[in-house]
Amino acid sequence: MTETNAQWRLAARPVGLAKPSDWEYVQEPAPEPSDGQFRVQLEYLSLDPAMRGWMNEGRSYVPPVRIGEVMRAGGIGRVVQSRHPDYGVGELVWGMFGVQRYALADGNGVNRVDTTLAPAPVFLGALGMTGLTAYFGLLDIGRPEPGQTVVVSGAAGAVGNVAGQIARIKGCRVVGIAGGPEKCEWLTRELGFDAAIDYKRGDLRAQLREQTRGGVDVYFDNVGGEILDEVLRRLARGARVVICGAISQYNAEQPPAGPANYMQLLVMRASMTGFLVFDFAKRYPEGIAQLAQWLGSGELRSREDVVTGGLDKFPEVFLMLFRGANTGKLILQLTEDAA
Amino acid sequence: MTETNAQWRLAARPVGLAKPSDWEYVQEPAPEPSDGQFRVQLEYLSLDPAMRGWMNEGRSYVPPVRIGEVMRAGGIGRVVQSRHPDYGVGELVWGMFGVQRYALADGNGVNRVDTTLAPAPVFLGALGMTGLTAYFGLLDIGRPEPGQTVVVSGAAGAVGNVAGQIARIKGCRVVGIAGGPEKCEWLTRELGFDAAIDYKRGDLRAQLREQTRGGVDVYFDNVGGEILDEVLRRLARGARVVICGAISQYNAEQPPAGPANYMQLLVMRASMTGFLVFDFAKRYPEGIAQLAQWLGSGELRSREDVVTGGLDKFPEVFLMLFRGANTGKLILQLTEDAA
Repeated sequence: MTETNAQWRLAARPVGLAKPSDWEYVQEPAPEPSDGQFRVQLEYLSLDPAMRGWMNEGRSYVPPVRIGEVMRAGGIGRVVQSRHPDYGVGELVWGMFGVQRYALADGNGVNRVDTTLAPAPVFLGALGMTGLTAYFGLLDIGRPEPGQTVVVSGAAGAVGNVAGQIARIKGCRVVGIAGGPEKCEWLTRELGFDAAIDYKRGDLRAQLREQTRGGVDVYFDNVGGEILDEVLRRLARGARVVICGAISQYNAEQPPAGPANYMQLLVMRASMTGFLVFDFAKRYPEGIAQLAQWLGSGELRSREDVVTGGLDKFPEVFLMLFRGANTGKLILQLTEDAA
Repeated sequence: MTETNAQWRLAARPVGLAKPSDWEYVQEPAPEPSDGQFRVQLEYLSLDPAMRGWMNEGRSYVPPVRIGEVMRAGGIGRVVQSRHPDYGVGELVWGMFGVQRYALADGNGVNRVDTTLAPAPVFLGALGMTGLTAYFGLLDIGRPEPGQTVVVSGAAGAVGNVAGQIARIKGCRVVGIAGGPEKCEWLTRELGFDAAIDYKRGDLRAQLREQTRGGVDVYFDNVGGEILDEVLRRLARGARVVICGAISQYNAEQPPAGPANYMQLLVMRASMTGFLVFDFAKRYPEGIAQLAQWLGSGELRSREDVVTGGLDKFPEVFLMLFRGANTGKLILQLTEDAA
């Protein structure tokens, strides 16, 4: 009996928010591994704002997904068939398996998931690329010092909440920017942020002034747009702005406005630096070990927003990211008996 | 007999380009030094784009010039009267003496001008704040390495031409961006730039692509606006963007657009960093010694665009900066027998 694979393949380059018709849902027989390959059945799919960028044409840090190609995504799955010496049936693995039920892999870019350390979804969150992005972005690019003020935007999102918690662990005053009172309360009450700013309240400038009286030493930006521009007005001398993302701009149909207040970089002798977690690949073990230790001690909390319902819900669940509908790491669960 | 002082005092905060009526021309008896003071007769006035920013209200790296206050400017002058133990009549000095014929000083922020090293105007150019700005901005913030591509905007301006020459001395491929064929020819034929891009030709993007095939490792930006945005599209991985100025924006009546392509900082793992030369004050002797050595060896050329005609021409000469009318350091000569 041959299993049936299901895939979301890119069908069109989206204009604005991705529509379901920007992908094609394809069913076909599951692929058979060749020698040196194994087949993975996906259990959890990672949903990341960056995926929107991968759908665009043009130069970026990775090639765009081609039209007709399976949509790129990270995920966790179980080896269900193997002709690879190192991966046996039943093993739980992480990799860029794409938005599909079954994926073939040869071990490249595949990592084992150790559920004795944490539940599987955490390996897409605080112990996965998400946590590593926060870890290296904040510590290596932001270089916060104890007592300094760290502002994080998209603070209730997957990367933002971890970045803020690491800043708190490092002895900083942490101010999160998020949308809505529930997210803000989660940041201050559950995660120990010193303050949270609800940008939907509409008085962003005043709230920022109130919460960053001594200026902002590190700004970890996940959103871009107006929020970036407002935080630039609050920089302290020698501030570091870490460009991690710009979710407010990913669906812009016109070239977005840049940060008009960028000359504050000169006034405050500050820097704005972009980074990609992939450049820290050699240090992933260091990052994971530290994150796991903080998780174990309870200093760091991981929150996954796991949506059930299977692969056909992908286009709909993906849009939750851009509505700010998720708190913590957005994950789509693909199988009922997932690890 | 009491000499008459003449001053340009700030009368209004300009909207757009500064008009003559934004200053008031005042004549009054020259000030008498008290104990510990001396009086300087200005011979050369430094004209700098940054002066436009000092005329605006609001937070910046120095307080704004107040309405009614003498317009702030650097200059070179001769001590004509002294009650200070260390400064004798006849000495040539540099300082922030303001836009006036006579200034009082107490020695703070005053430096001696050694005309055995170079003609006096050079101390407002390559051996002055201008040269030091290029030196520390390029080397400490830009950190160019031999063989790398350095792009300088405002390259025929006071700071830009020195920054480009230093990059050339350091073994970089240097591309200058300037307005008009004369300036471009000066950069390549006289100063040894590898290439010059005439932004007034109108095909900036194509010219940039042609001249920076391997990408831009260091961008030394004096202009902001569209040119900054276009160069961001050409960044090489790990590039450093040095924010020295934004002359294209200083007279904007609306908040200027920011660099829309700033997300290239993420794509290319690049940084954009502002700086102020004042922060390097302790290292000025190092910078001046090195610049003087390069001047002496002929590796570095200094060009001053000295306009004669006296103090009453100040508002008119100041505007030359924003028309791109000067090549090299713009200086207003105030006395006929200047050093």
